[in-house]
Amino acid sequence: MPPVAAPDGYRVGVRARAPASAANLGPGFDTLAIALDRYIEVEVEPADRLDVRTEGEGAGLSDDPSHLAARVAIQVAGTDRLSITVRSQIPVARGLGSSAALAVAAAAAAGSDDPLGVAAQMDGHPDNAAASTVGGLVAAARVRGGIQAVRLPLDVSLAFVVIVPDVTLSTARARQALPTDVPRESAAFNLSRMALLIAGLADSRLLISEATEDRLHQDYRSPLFPAAPMLLAGMAAGGAQAVCWSGAGPSLLGICQGADAHTVRAAAEVALAESGVPGQVMIMHPDLHGLVVDRADSDAFFDFDAG
Amino acid sequence: MPPVAAPDGYRVGVRARAPASAANLGPGFDTLAIALDRYIEVEVEPADRLDVRTEGEGAGLSDDPSHLAARVAIQVAGTDRLSITVRSQIPVARGLGSSAALAVAAAAAAGSDDPLGVAAQMDGHPDNAAASTVGGLVAAARVRGGIQAVRLPLDVSLAFVVIVPDVTLSTARARQALPTDVPRESAAFNLSRMALLIAGLADSRLLISEATEDRLHQDYRSPLFPAAPMLLAGMAAGGAQAVCWSGAGPSLLGICQGADAHTVRAAAEVALAESGVPGQVMIMHPDLHGLVVDRADSDAFFDFDAG
Repeated sequence: MPPVAAPDGYRVGVRARAPASAANLGPGFDTLAIALDRYIEVEVEPADRLDVRTEGEGAGLSDDPSHLAARVAIQVAGTDRLSITVRSQIPVARGLGSSAALAVAAAAAAGSDDPLGVAAQMDGHPDNAAASTVGGLVAAARVRGGIQAVRLPLDVSLAFVVIVPDVTLSTARARQALPTDVPRESAAFNLSRMALLIAGLADSRLLISEATEDRLHQDYRSPLFPAAPMLLAGMAAGGAQAVCWSGAGPSLLGICQGADAHTVRAAAEVALAESGVPGQVMIMHPDLHGLVVDRADSDAFFDFDAG
Repeated sequence: MPPVAAPDGYRVGVRARAPASAANLGPGFDTLAIALDRYIEVEVEPADRLDVRTEGEGAGLSDDPSHLAARVAIQVAGTDRLSITVRSQIPVARGLGSSAALAVAAAAAAGSDDPLGVAAQMDGHPDNAAASTVGGLVAAARVRGGIQAVRLPLDVSLAFVVIVPDVTLSTARARQALPTDVPRESAAFNLSRMALLIAGLADSRLLISEATEDRLHQDYRSPLFPAAPMLLAGMAAGGAQAVCWSGAGPSLLGICQGADAHTVRAAAEVALAESGVPGQVMIMHPDLHGLVVDRADSDAFFDFDAG
């Protein structure tokens, strides 16, 4: 494809990578998220017309201007004369932050100097977007119209066993299941659990199973995915120190020592088979880098396997 | 007073000291508390009949079996043949955790091996009791019928300017002002602010004024102490990085760098004078020791000024 005139400030193809993420983590509703080592990569180059190509997870879902990567990149670049390539390892609509990671990476690849802000505004998941941008364990808060992301300490001995059902659950539908008002005691309950969780994720010796208890969203969402309680119980019985939904689900997390991950995964696979729900179980580790951006013409940017 | 036969396991007079504390800290409703360097000391010795003596703050309020120190010590020791001496620097019923500190110290001085549990059960403020026991910044959660207290990192460069009005506010009355249900968005709001606060108290460079914002209790309590908003604003304008109520009030906190504490105190004194509310302004520092217990016959236990 021949180079074309590009808008000011947008003169070279750029490639950006952002990690998956698990938000909420039980009590940290709309606040906590952790970046996990599955990735989405977006490459944006000047072109004579819009061209969207997708590989890996989510490939072919909408390779046109309605694709989130295209909408974000066009808004950032101020033109639709872009060639956009998306390669993803992150399952779509499973509660693993694929759309937030995509928006962060697309914004960065299109030249934004505030990919978190762009992603939070266009995708609407600031907690996931913060984890995909900053990496590690983060908290996100809306402050003065923007997103304030702070990184919290994370014990890197922890691993995350992730049950990824072959069913999708839209965040919007999952949110409609939630009540408008909650008992004040439930609000205080979640505050106490989130504090235990922050302490336990910083030092896994302090991580107790009660740290992921929640009274604001998980129980309300269980009717949308009735197998969730028994799958969570299966991971806990199999050695996970704490278990919770990943974001709005349906993916489920077992938090454990890295050394125990294979044991917990085996227990999760047994529970998944018993539930009759199709799906897979993955071991993921925290990603500590967050968003990584480079020129698209550099050599060997990522060792990326989109499959 | 001659020594008398004492119950099993209770053979020597014991002295215990516990710090004051500020709970809630804005968003951390019923969860966070920080220990502050004002102290209460309780000494319990075998005696031929109950004798309660009090010095300093709260002296003479109820020097009889109804005194919280007497109730706690009698329950722990299993006898009322006790001589109990209380010396306090902690103003009573001001939101500075005086009753929790008293209960912790009395339980320890009477020989309890779980002063936090005893205090939380008899006094009902597990967050304050956790700070008075553990010291520093803590989170407390009710777990399996007990109190789980975890210490969170604290930037020791921080100081606390405390407006202590000469009016009391009972925690029970302050709690009655709170609604039974709250919007789910308010619950999530407090979660996001508490995460910012935990990050900001761990590293004061990250502490922003929004970190102490709250939607669960402070605004509901303001009618009980209408001067609170302008006093808080006065400390913020005077250089406090963040401001909030101390517990259920009426004491108010300005969190600042130690180097700025005198400037913030001066601003607080001006605001207090303008408000017409009688009271005083103190500079407090975090206590990092929590509960300290020693035999009453040891020399120079504390350099304690009850006044």
